[in-house]
Amino acid sequence: MKLTLTESEMARLGKVPRLNLVNSLSGYKSANLIATANSRGQTNLAIFSSVMHLGSDPALLGFMLRPTTVARHTYENIKETGHYTINHIHEDMIEPAHQTSGKYPAEQSEFEATGLTPEIWSDQKAPFVAESRIQIGLRFEEEHMLKVNRTRLIVGRILEMRFPADIQRPDGTLDLEKARVVTISGADTYSLPATIRRMPYVRL
Amino acid sequence: MKLTLTESEMARLGKVPRLNLVNSLSGYKSANLIATANSRGQTNLAIFSSVMHLGSDPALLGFMLRPTTVARHTYENIKETGHYTINHIHEDMIEPAHQTSGKYPAEQSEFEATGLTPEIWSDQKAPFVAESRIQIGLRFEEEHMLKVNRTRLIVGRILEMRFPADIQRPDGTLDLEKARVVTISGADTYSLPATIRRMPYVRL
Repeated sequence: MKLTLTESEMARLGKVPRLNLVNSLSGYKSANLIATANSRGQTNLAIFSSVMHLGSDPALLGFMLRPTTVARHTYENIKETGHYTINHIHEDMIEPAHQTSGKYPAEQSEFEATGLTPEIWSDQKAPFVAESRIQIGLRFEEEHMLKVNRTRLIVGRILEMRFPADIQRPDGTLDLEKARVVTISGADTYSLPATIRRMPYVRL
Repeated sequence: MKLTLTESEMARLGKVPRLNLVNSLSGYKSANLIATANSRGQTNLAIFSSVMHLGSDPALLGFMLRPTTVARHTYENIKETGHYTINHIHEDMIEPAHQTSGKYPAEQSEFEATGLTPEIWSDQKAPFVAESRIQIGLRFEEEHMLKVNRTRLIVGRILEMRFPADIQRPDGTLDLEKARVVTISGADTYSLPATIRRMPYVRL
């Protein structure tokens, strides 16, 4: 049996069921921790499921920032220092990664609160997450604010990256399955993908 | 052994290895078909791995459109009619869904070329994909163009949706695993996620 919902029927759903439904409607999402530091060096760490590919030359990644998010410090620190890191979440770090979504006191770093480890290996003003197998350092490039709900798209340029050599395939791609990277659906469901197949480039 | 790449080392990679690397660097991506029609009713169908959640009230989804994409008709048709549909790809339709990425002659619809079936069940000016288990009808809301590489973020408002009743959980979320929805990494790797766990909302 199929269920059909119109815009007005969606509007009549309660706030939480509507949020849960729409949040799962976009399909599987990336699972990342974004780390920042303010100009005094105080670190911040927050989980994001909106990191996206935006281009390879220059190499760009984007993510979305909701106006009411607990990750407000992420935005402030990025604007303050221009730097941030994106760190992939794998199956062994789901628990502490998810815990970063709590509203901690301003003076407490989510690194301390969750036991994840800040790591410095470049000129980045933000730390990397030592536990992450795929670490990416970025510099803020531009931002766009949606008129409809004041959500921001943050665009960053990749400055450096680090990952285990054995997860890179000969064609350059990273084997996310081998790295045990997870994916998120909705706000709370963590899944581990298994490769079905790789499809050839379509030539006609 | 870990591999570290800086911006200048990335720039020295060949075009294809760099594209493959960066395209897999954002993590797992959603797998969707976007269907449109022009004002004469000619249909177009293209695969996208950039569909994202942008808000639940109003219910909004976004996707990215590269300037050089073969999916140029998608953009033209959305601007012409204001309408488009997002249709999830499940494991049994990977082959025809991937085939929509070919450069077909302007007069040939990717529906014909791939054997996927257009379906109409609302006032949408674009067809749905009959084979998809999760179908979403949208109206264009706004767009933003990145200065850095002229890629566009297209924002749409959800007008209606249809899915099998038995994939919706009591809390409103859709069980994407039950629907056998796939995820994409890079440009060519299709995977099927298996749920590890659902995490509770973090209260402190």
